[in-house]
Amino acid sequence: MASYKVSFKPHDQEVEVHDGTLISQAASEAGVDLNMPCGGQGRCGRCAVIVEQGEVQRRSVARLSDQALDEGYALACQTVVKGDLVVSIPAQEKIERRLPTAQRAAKVELPFAYDLAKHQSVRKFFLEIEPPSLADNTDDLARLRRDLQAQHGVDAQRMTADLATLRRLGPVLREAQWKVTAVLEMDTWASPDGPPRLVDILPGDQTGSLWGVAVDIGTTSNVVYLVDLLTGKVVDTASEYNRQISRGEDVISRIIYASKGDGLRELQGLVVGTINGLLGQLAERNQITAGEIYKMTVAGNSTMIHLFMALPPEPIRLEPYVTVTNQPPPVRAAELGVAINPSASIDCLPGVGSYVGADITAGVCSSNMCESAEVSLFIDIGTNGEIVLGDCDWLISCACSAGPAFEGSGVQDGMRATAGAIEEVWIDDNTFEATYRVIGDELPRGICGSGLISLLAELFISGVMDKAGNINIGLDTPRIREGAHGPEYVVVPAEETATGRDIVINKVDIDNLLRAKAAVYAGFSVLARSVGIDLSTVQHILIAGAFGQYLDVENAIQIGLLPDLPRDRFKFLGNTSIRGAYMALASRESRKGIAELARRMTYLELSADNTFHDEWMSALFFPHTHITEFPSVMELLKSKE
Amino acid sequence: MASYKVSFKPHDQEVEVHDGTLISQAASEAGVDLNMPCGGQGRCGRCAVIVEQGEVQRRSVARLSDQALDEGYALACQTVVKGDLVVSIPAQEKIERRLPTAQRAAKVELPFAYDLAKHQSVRKFFLEIEPPSLADNTDDLARLRRDLQAQHGVDAQRMTADLATLRRLGPVLREAQWKVTAVLEMDTWASPDGPPRLVDILPGDQTGSLWGVAVDIGTTSNVVYLVDLLTGKVVDTASEYNRQISRGEDVISRIIYASKGDGLRELQGLVVGTINGLLGQLAERNQITAGEIYKMTVAGNSTMIHLFMALPPEPIRLEPYVTVTNQPPPVRAAELGVAINPSASIDCLPGVGSYVGADITAGVCSSNMCESAEVSLFIDIGTNGEIVLGDCDWLISCACSAGPAFEGSGVQDGMRATAGAIEEVWIDDNTFEATYRVIGDELPRGICGSGLISLLAELFISGVMDKAGNINIGLDTPRIREGAHGPEYVVVPAEETATGRDIVINKVDIDNLLRAKAAVYAGFSVLARSVGIDLSTVQHILIAGAFGQYLDVENAIQIGLLPDLPRDRFKFLGNTSIRGAYMALASRESRKGIAELARRMTYLELSADNTFHDEWMSALFFPHTHITEFPSVMELLKSKE
Repeated sequence: MASYKVSFKPHDQEVEVHDGTLISQAASEAGVDLNMPCGGQGRCGRCAVIVEQGEVQRRSVARLSDQALDEGYALACQTVVKGDLVVSIPAQEKIERRLPTAQRAAKVELPFAYDLAKHQSVRKFFLEIEPPSLADNTDDLARLRRDLQAQHGVDAQRMTADLATLRRLGPVLREAQWKVTAVLEMDTWASPDGPPRLVDILPGDQTGSLWGVAVDIGTTSNVVYLVDLLTGKVVDTASEYNRQISRGEDVISRIIYASKGDGLRELQGLVVGTINGLLGQLAERNQITAGEIYKMTVAGNSTMIHLFMALPPEPIRLEPYVTVTNQPPPVRAAELGVAINPSASIDCLPGVGSYVGADITAGVCSSNMCESAEVSLFIDIGTNGEIVLGDCDWLISCACSAGPAFEGSGVQDGMRATAGAIEEVWIDDNTFEATYRVIGDELPRGICGSGLISLLAELFISGVMDKAGNINIGLDTPRIREGAHGPEYVVVPAEETATGRDIVINKVDIDNLLRAKAAVYAGFSVLARSVGIDLSTVQHILIAGAFGQYLDVENAIQIGLLPDLPRDRFKFLGNTSIRGAYMALASRESRKGIAELARRMTYLELSADNTFHDEWMSALFFPHTHITEFPSVMELLKSKE
Repeated sequence: MASYKVSFKPHDQEVEVHDGTLISQAASEAGVDLNMPCGGQGRCGRCAVIVEQGEVQRRSVARLSDQALDEGYALACQTVVKGDLVVSIPAQEKIERRLPTAQRAAKVELPFAYDLAKHQSVRKFFLEIEPPSLADNTDDLARLRRDLQAQHGVDAQRMTADLATLRRLGPVLREAQWKVTAVLEMDTWASPDGPPRLVDILPGDQTGSLWGVAVDIGTTSNVVYLVDLLTGKVVDTASEYNRQISRGEDVISRIIYASKGDGLRELQGLVVGTINGLLGQLAERNQITAGEIYKMTVAGNSTMIHLFMALPPEPIRLEPYVTVTNQPPPVRAAELGVAINPSASIDCLPGVGSYVGADITAGVCSSNMCESAEVSLFIDIGTNGEIVLGDCDWLISCACSAGPAFEGSGVQDGMRATAGAIEEVWIDDNTFEATYRVIGDELPRGICGSGLISLLAELFISGVMDKAGNINIGLDTPRIREGAHGPEYVVVPAEETATGRDIVINKVDIDNLLRAKAAVYAGFSVLARSVGIDLSTVQHILIAGAFGQYLDVENAIQIGLLPDLPRDRFKFLGNTSIRGAYMALASRESRKGIAELARRMTYLELSADNTFHDEWMSALFFPHTHITEFPSVMELLKSKE
């Protein structure tokens, strides 16, 4: 097969590839980082590059104008190399996002009194061992076992040891003159009765510290808690965007990316790179070495866990949507390339299914709803809305594909919750003028999820938009006008924006958002009906996740995203996934609790439920076809008449 | 530090090294293979090279004549690079040895009727699995578990799986349309109650074959048995010299080599390379792939096991002589780089101590002496003589350092049992002329161990040598003469040899052999005395090992190496180590038996026993100071008077 030279400007990276290679593959081989939020499906247009010289074949030119094509633009993920090329990478939109602040200033405490011996599976034991003699030439490992038993009452006869640790045993014992610290994993969830495992052997007395980390692998951001396992306290936290984002913004895009060539390994490397970066920060700030970290628990949705472990995720996105395993076995850090002690266990928490993952079981566990006699509704809204309904006796869950509208995609002027995003809007009932608040005190560039919900609610309550989502074109205001996609409302005129273009919302945007909120509300309704209870009897509405933190409950009820219940029943929990991972790290009981929870939680597949479609259709109004389900909204509308 | 260029002739390999590097290290870095039978201690002189140009510093010139030094000869292991060098490697003695023939033509059978379900820990199960559906979207692993339980009654709920296997699970299930073969390790000696482990998942029905290998890692030669685990039968065998030989001929030399620089990794690589070569031969001859081999058991002395697992062996050779562990945990093939299925368990059998290793426990197990009510004496003579005395109730063992005399070293014309070695000698009582038999029908080049024992016995019985080992210089024969090291006997005159030099035995040789045989016999005596029995009451003398196969019992008794007991009590067992490994491979019970045996076998450290020296002194005669212990020899000598 012919092979060609592809050279990337502006940094002149060069690579030799076969005829038929995609420009995106060539870029990857040359070490050039391209954004591919749609996972290389040719949908988003973000990987557009300029072919300055040479022959290519464009499989798709979606989102490229004729002018752009004339200028040599091509989609890297859809364009095949057919000769020696010079390709130029345009300066891409700088990724500049806001990290959820609550994750930075963690003040997280365990809901129980931490007891090292009772709660912790990883322990350190200092030993002064009698050196061997001709009279007693017991081997090194047996000698260690004997003294662990004699000095600390550890049932060490059955103790196992990894080969790497065994290789260090003899030299460390002798260099440290038989005064050593043994690091033991006493048990794992998979074998709660042991045997213990020798994780490390250290010279001298090093029992003064014992470190672990809890990790939340979000599709968008990753969070690591550094935990002092002697006290059970969170000592420091760090978070960062998941480096996989450039290979797809949502789980589906990433699964598609993973299924191509070395995509799975690449995504695994990116998330491990993200976590290792955070571990490096934490180690440096707290003056420890990563090798001193002896335990890691990981929460995340099922796709994130699959990608982290490099388990092929393809069946997650294809009917009937199954995972390789919902309860991954513990693995060694070295197996995944995670930069903690290489013999340390990494424990990926169990999920319920493809779309109700460990982030949800960990979240439910940390919320305590599974121990309450009162019925709670747990909600985590993102691209997927995961919902759990239940109490201490039963739990039922579902996932509704809300689409990425609430994350700013699929909406013309939507954007992520970063600097320049409008996060709240108010519309004057009389003038229909809008005021707004922007993240980061900058000129606005777009509207983020919470801003969109706020905007919809104001449009509806002010009468700019009717219950079906139609903009009232008859109102006397220059903000309402006919646009390319039907009537639109100007939220911010061009002269006030960072981009110099109007920020608007149109009928297409509204319909996307309407479908998304209807999917979530229909999920609640189907779950409640399936167990024969009325939504109004739910005592606690627990809102989890980063998005939830910025959600205005009034607005969310006004558009019919959340049920219209007494406001004191609503509670914002923030990142429950990391909190569950932290609890599992700190306590055997909590870890066991999450496993039990994952086992007993029923999963209802909405796409297989014949009432879902009807519920969804009923919810395709603001706030709902059955307005009587929203008495406070009825009241408010009546007061405006 | 200054660095120099070293170039090796005749193949012009070149390397850049720091000032102070040994020529042997430079050679290793340049990929030049040098023989270092003494492990780089400057004792054997086998690594001599010619420094043709450049400056060196000779730390030792042992075994180099003045003429050799003038010609530029230097010991590679003792000579330091002090400038740019041109070094020439002389053509070295070709390694050409005889592999024990009995190992090639194995006709080995299990001492019990093989029952797959009862004896075998590794199993294959064919499964036809119902594909997942929206109504039942159980995850892949849980689905596999469920059907293993339902279709085969396997307690699979607790089943674990390696990450690598888990990564293949989903794709294999789907590509094979849910008709798969699961390869399970049901248990290991370390956890006899399971849980089972999913070792591999294969498409379709592959239950028609199930392969395992038993391995004996000898210091000199390595043997592999390919075993059909469905029938328990040995299907093929292969053996080869241990590639570590070039880095030291005995265990002590190898331990020394291992303690320098990357020596341990190098030795590990060499033995794994040897075994992988044998596995390759077996796979090709039997038309299987190495990946189909799902289990390996390994016997060998403690040093060999340490080197195979890359456990630092240094403490084995230093008082008080301890191992890292006598019961190594099972490891995965991938961890050691052994070319069988990467997830297969490699089970290194347990030993008793530094000098009574798994080769002996496996040997004792295969000999059945541990199940007999009659007392047996088990002997394996090599550089070390390992001895076990006992019956079904008790077992006591010791190791006596016989030195390498019986392996042909430390004797002027000694050599290994390869082509050209004299393996048997007869001396005429009247003429004192010798006749002899040579291995391989060649002209003789030297005398191997069995030949030396035969020679000593004939010298003694014919009266050429007295009981103290003095050659009778007064006898009227040209074969007896004064040599450089005192009186010597010419076994073969120069004109009949391959080398054109006389093959002789002198007083120094005889003393070395005398000390070696005395050490072994003293070992028997101390063991017997320590348990309060008389050697003459021993019912079975079991002679193990390759060397034993060529030993003439009469000769060995005549020189006092073996006790003078009725000849029908002697039994030659051949390579019992590989047979023990085979039994452990084929049967859980045998594996358990070896572990129990290793635990209950007492180890007597001769260097800490105060009767050993006296016993050794008494044995420094042919056949012994107390000639009454050798009635048949007394009788024979009397008949000659």
